[in-house]
Amino acid sequence: MNRSVVFAALICAAASLAPISRVTIADETPLYGFSAESSRTERQWEDKFRAIPKPENLRAYMQQLTARPHNVGSPYDKANAEWILAKYKAFGLDAHIEVFDVLFPTPKERLVELVEGGPHFVAKLQEPAIPQDPTSNQQSEQLPTYNAYSADGDVTGPLVYVNYGIPEDYEELERRRVSVKGAIVISRYGNAWRGIKPKVAAEHGAIGCIIYSDPRDDGFSPGETFPQGPYRPKDGVQRGSVQDSGEFMGDPLTPGVGATPDAKRLPIKDAPTITKIPVLPLSYADAQPLLAAIAGPVAPPSWRGSLPLTYRIGPGPGKVHLKVFANWDIKRLYDVIAKIPGSTYPDEWVIRGNHHDAWVNGAEDPISGQVAMLEQARATAELVKAGWKPKRTIIFCSWDGEEPGLLGSTEWVETHAEELRQHTVAYINSDSTGRGFFSAEGSHSLEKFINDVARDVHDPETGLTVWKRMQLQQIAHPEGKDDRDEARNRPDLRIGALGGGSDYGPFLNIIGIASLDISFGGETGGGIYHSIYDDFYWYTHFSDTDFSYGRTLSETGGIATMRLADGDLLPFDFSDYADTLQMYVRELKKFAKEQREEVTERNLKIAEGAFTASADPKEKYVVPAKQEIPPYLNFAPLENSVESVVLSAQEYSKALAKANEHGGVAVAGTSSAEINRMLIDSERKLITPEGIPGRPGYKHELYAPGEYTGYEAKAIPAVREAMEQKHWKLAEDGIVRVAKLLSDEAALISSAAEKLSAAK
Amino acid sequence: MNRSVVFAALICAAASLAPISRVTIADETPLYGFSAESSRTERQWEDKFRAIPKPENLRAYMQQLTARPHNVGSPYDKANAEWILAKYKAFGLDAHIEVFDVLFPTPKERLVELVEGGPHFVAKLQEPAIPQDPTSNQQSEQLPTYNAYSADGDVTGPLVYVNYGIPEDYEELERRRVSVKGAIVISRYGNAWRGIKPKVAAEHGAIGCIIYSDPRDDGFSPGETFPQGPYRPKDGVQRGSVQDSGEFMGDPLTPGVGATPDAKRLPIKDAPTITKIPVLPLSYADAQPLLAAIAGPVAPPSWRGSLPLTYRIGPGPGKVHLKVFANWDIKRLYDVIAKIPGSTYPDEWVIRGNHHDAWVNGAEDPISGQVAMLEQARATAELVKAGWKPKRTIIFCSWDGEEPGLLGSTEWVETHAEELRQHTVAYINSDSTGRGFFSAEGSHSLEKFINDVARDVHDPETGLTVWKRMQLQQIAHPEGKDDRDEARNRPDLRIGALGGGSDYGPFLNIIGIASLDISFGGETGGGIYHSIYDDFYWYTHFSDTDFSYGRTLSETGGIATMRLADGDLLPFDFSDYADTLQMYVRELKKFAKEQREEVTERNLKIAEGAFTASADPKEKYVVPAKQEIPPYLNFAPLENSVESVVLSAQEYSKALAKANEHGGVAVAGTSSAEINRMLIDSERKLITPEGIPGRPGYKHELYAPGEYTGYEAKAIPAVREAMEQKHWKLAEDGIVRVAKLLSDEAALISSAAEKLSAAK
Repeated sequence: MNRSVVFAALICAAASLAPISRVTIADETPLYGFSAESSRTERQWEDKFRAIPKPENLRAYMQQLTARPHNVGSPYDKANAEWILAKYKAFGLDAHIEVFDVLFPTPKERLVELVEGGPHFVAKLQEPAIPQDPTSNQQSEQLPTYNAYSADGDVTGPLVYVNYGIPEDYEELERRRVSVKGAIVISRYGNAWRGIKPKVAAEHGAIGCIIYSDPRDDGFSPGETFPQGPYRPKDGVQRGSVQDSGEFMGDPLTPGVGATPDAKRLPIKDAPTITKIPVLPLSYADAQPLLAAIAGPVAPPSWRGSLPLTYRIGPGPGKVHLKVFANWDIKRLYDVIAKIPGSTYPDEWVIRGNHHDAWVNGAEDPISGQVAMLEQARATAELVKAGWKPKRTIIFCSWDGEEPGLLGSTEWVETHAEELRQHTVAYINSDSTGRGFFSAEGSHSLEKFINDVARDVHDPETGLTVWKRMQLQQIAHPEGKDDRDEARNRPDLRIGALGGGSDYGPFLNIIGIASLDISFGGETGGGIYHSIYDDFYWYTHFSDTDFSYGRTLSETGGIATMRLADGDLLPFDFSDYADTLQMYVRELKKFAKEQREEVTERNLKIAEGAFTASADPKEKYVVPAKQEIPPYLNFAPLENSVESVVLSAQEYSKALAKANEHGGVAVAGTSSAEINRMLIDSERKLITPEGIPGRPGYKHELYAPGEYTGYEAKAIPAVREAMEQKHWKLAEDGIVRVAKLLSDEAALISSAAEKLSAAK
Repeated sequence: MNRSVVFAALICAAASLAPISRVTIADETPLYGFSAESSRTERQWEDKFRAIPKPENLRAYMQQLTARPHNVGSPYDKANAEWILAKYKAFGLDAHIEVFDVLFPTPKERLVELVEGGPHFVAKLQEPAIPQDPTSNQQSEQLPTYNAYSADGDVTGPLVYVNYGIPEDYEELERRRVSVKGAIVISRYGNAWRGIKPKVAAEHGAIGCIIYSDPRDDGFSPGETFPQGPYRPKDGVQRGSVQDSGEFMGDPLTPGVGATPDAKRLPIKDAPTITKIPVLPLSYADAQPLLAAIAGPVAPPSWRGSLPLTYRIGPGPGKVHLKVFANWDIKRLYDVIAKIPGSTYPDEWVIRGNHHDAWVNGAEDPISGQVAMLEQARATAELVKAGWKPKRTIIFCSWDGEEPGLLGSTEWVETHAEELRQHTVAYINSDSTGRGFFSAEGSHSLEKFINDVARDVHDPETGLTVWKRMQLQQIAHPEGKDDRDEARNRPDLRIGALGGGSDYGPFLNIIGIASLDISFGGETGGGIYHSIYDDFYWYTHFSDTDFSYGRTLSETGGIATMRLADGDLLPFDFSDYADTLQMYVRELKKFAKEQREEVTERNLKIAEGAFTASADPKEKYVVPAKQEIPPYLNFAPLENSVESVVLSAQEYSKALAKANEHGGVAVAGTSSAEINRMLIDSERKLITPEGIPGRPGYKHELYAPGEYTGYEAKAIPAVREAMEQKHWKLAEDGIVRVAKLLSDEAALISSAAEKLSAAK
């Protein structure tokens, strides 16, 4: 399809304000990767599919799956897996459960006690039941509030408030001459994967770490608290894993290999991802007396939360006794795997996944996404019964053990690595979902594809396509003028890169499988994340209460899965991809320039005496030390290789356009199989088998969760993070290595284009 | 002095980090406006002067003047005036008291009561005494907490929270479909002159207005509260005037004329500056139950304060009964005026002023500045006794009635308008002052002058000159990169324009007298403003506790006054001035461009349906209406006239440089008198006698307090505010009128340059 045509169509649609009718587009242009004829057939099946998913089914599944706490190792976790298995089978799918045995610590002893510097206080560490919420009183089955994979420990030390506890917060502490050596840090949740907080604290010499939910972030400040509203009540606690997952994902005892019952395991003391210091999460009711016992410098404005006190940094005088001991048990995971075999290319797999384990009852996280996927599976199975024969194999995966650290998916991927490398076309993930705007993140070779899917699904609230609504949202509330203009003018909406935090991780970062993560949200705030209040009562009162968005997620996931399974050519596109690569290189160069300017400017200020002169002599203050100015880096290899990707992408687009003029390549089955193999390999090419430097579990050279962000993605991480950590040699090496991968990638795309041109 | 020389000197000083020695500069270059010989003499007198002011004197004066509440109309206000008079006389000055009779309402009845939508609650409206603070218990003499010039009224209505209550907050309300019609608004203090809040509320149909101090702004959030720390305790209340001073300053009953005992007065009902609706201020303890009784949409993040509740907008269900009645009495003001006659040009006056009235005991506001000025007067008088003969007349003014609305200064200026127009060279104001960085705002013809003064005064904490410390502060903590570069590279630090809020107002805006406002601060936060806790105890515990900065203000004010009084040529400079005019025109053009772009973009979003599509259908939301795109304005007249000012300023600089080569113009007394007359007139030229459109009390065409900001200055206000209010015709007229004034200004400067070149 010609891009300027698409663009013109969008502008007209925008001007007329009419929801784009799916049919209008449908009948004009063949689906990307389909011939005119196969496209017509596909659309007919898709229309049948759309009619099947029912909100009331999602509601019923959720009620079942959230009826009791179902964390890893609990009876109801296993029961849920068996129920899901029975469902898949009832739908008519070939399904089984696959088990893994993983390290999953649960609390044995927990204590937070203010022993000095304020009235003696012992934290409650308990979320109370709420009368109108019928599952909140299942106390005997609820996991106590804790952070999994915290080191055991019994420590006492003065408190230091460290804001979000990320590296830049420690720079601020240093400027104020506050050290956390020998201290227990108290950090608020937010702004990074929670495992970053104890990691950075330990790196700076802290002996313990408390993480609490500040009401400014998800409590009474953004809205009414539960049960009157959706936000975190004063005793609500965010549980969660604090694995140091910077090097590896998955079971701490089996890095790199599947945690099958007979796998070789590390001794616990050698497990690389367990924290160095004890960690415990608190509610804001429990945190308040501790924060009130901190004196020292007043926290800067952006550090101040919503508790009615002066946020100060410390250290002390408040001194805390923190005790954390766990039962370090091995627990069994139950992954449920269901299959629909492909008719034409059974060895090409399209995988769709969502986890089923939770911290407690987990209605939003993860059952909202799980039930959408289940209903997608039911609808897909219905189609099969009605005669639909997907060309490729479709696999549904209901993962266990995501919460502790992507255990169920990672161990399965590690166990089946070779097959997956060989067979997998793409992985589509979902997890928590709500009401509002469509969101997609993922591999940029699938950017065009998921934009096309979103153009063919309608938003239940507005009747617009979910694509249109997402575009208008980005226009109405952009992060900046450039983003707004891009949303308005770029044919496809740019999707974000995948970072960390859900089960796409092992697919993308270990094997190099093109992946997507999809959801709806933005109209459902809340503060019940990882608490006992994330349950059916909460979800049906404050989130997607009528499951209309859940149904739409079934539809979106379904259409995406069907198209990937049925396309004559796989819908990989390299134009958007090349465009994003160009952006990444621009960003790296901009970052290099900013780093140089920042150090130069800071050194100048030091020489001028600006820091000394402007500091209040009555306050403690450290003049920063002069730093070496970052060297100029040679980005040329990267620029050249990206240029070659741009050119090869153009070749591929041209070849595809030509093929379409002649009715597509579907006529020549062999050629298309060969080209599809190349397309699949295009993501594998981005893998460095030994992993990016220092991070052997992360092998993808375009995307990784940041080592010091955890959730947030870093693009071209080997270069970016080396620059952030001022390892210039590593950065230069990374440039060369990534450039080489991208040159190979360009060659592969050119070959695919050539094959496509030659196909008849 | 050659500018590039100055600049090079600064860079060296910066690099060496050594405090600039005053002597080094002193002996090299004559003071601006002085011949080499008169400069030497002047510097000798200045050195003698510097040695005189003593911190212990400032402390003793403050203890005396803050011993009891001394608001307008109180016995101690009169007693203070008499004490100050006696001091001036004791110093040896020719001093007298001048009285005016002004409208000054005081509370008769005050009630804030929550009558619906929450537990019945009656606001305390009372600041408690604090044991260790010896003056906080003088309850019988303390003015109750109130807002002077509030309309009388007894109203009941639902509450609406309006954030700071400025126009943009009402735009936000409109987007959320919340109307204040018939409601009582509750606004927090800050971000504008407090009188703006009831004004804008009434314009939108509110029937009452409550203004409270949110702890986020000056309570427990920025720091420990009084008496443990300097910030506002829970029952602390900010009193203050709520005059609608957009049209006039001064006594509401005598706009435009002096409120002498026999003046003709308006009936109170016709007074233009009294609010339209009743207003009362609250502490945060009193505000909390009211805010807790508001439901409706959750306030946006930037509206949320630090009280432990969900900030919501309303309206209601909380309903408040607000009752405010005042005693509408005429009170007597006591301005104390002291004079040192000039020896050579007795008819050229240099005026130095600071008010003495307070809301309660007023140690920081205004006695901290008053005592610095008194000590300056004492030191100046000592010099005179030692034989110093200032060429020009020096007048010290201790104003009464500043707090209600610049009454003492305005009525004096109105009474003596003709003499002042004829004789006044410049007015130097101070008010509250503290510890930290030097700050100067004022007329840009005096920018170079006050920079030179600041280069010759030393900071007590660092030993740097106050100029150097101010520069390094601006480099270390700039508002943006451009400001930082300017602070680093521009020979003089740019001073801000004068807005509203202290006694320079009538001098600058009624007569067109070049004015400056000077102070120290930035290291002394606090939350006792206009409360009973702004007293000697607070100031000596939390502000300039050793009065070393107060002494430095005496020195700075003294040097500035002496140089203005003694210069052969007045130290007016037009290069900096022209540079700032160019900046103002650039800013206006930028604003015009932004206005056009903003409306164009909003209209496009409306046409695209972006607002509708991105709104949550479950929330009330109004799509904004399309607006007419602002027309292009013709800025050419302004650009041409500013260009002519630039050229004339160059001529003047050249002429002055030439005169200096020949030993200055002091030798030719007559010529310099003529030139000085022109220099004095250069500020008068900027006056439009009938005032800027709709604001007859504000006649200066370069600077005015914003009609909807109150404190903050608007540059070229007739054009700027017309644009803000979308009165394009008025804006065009303003451009033409200001351009004409500036052309005349350029001609005057050229004439002065010509005279100077001709002088021998």
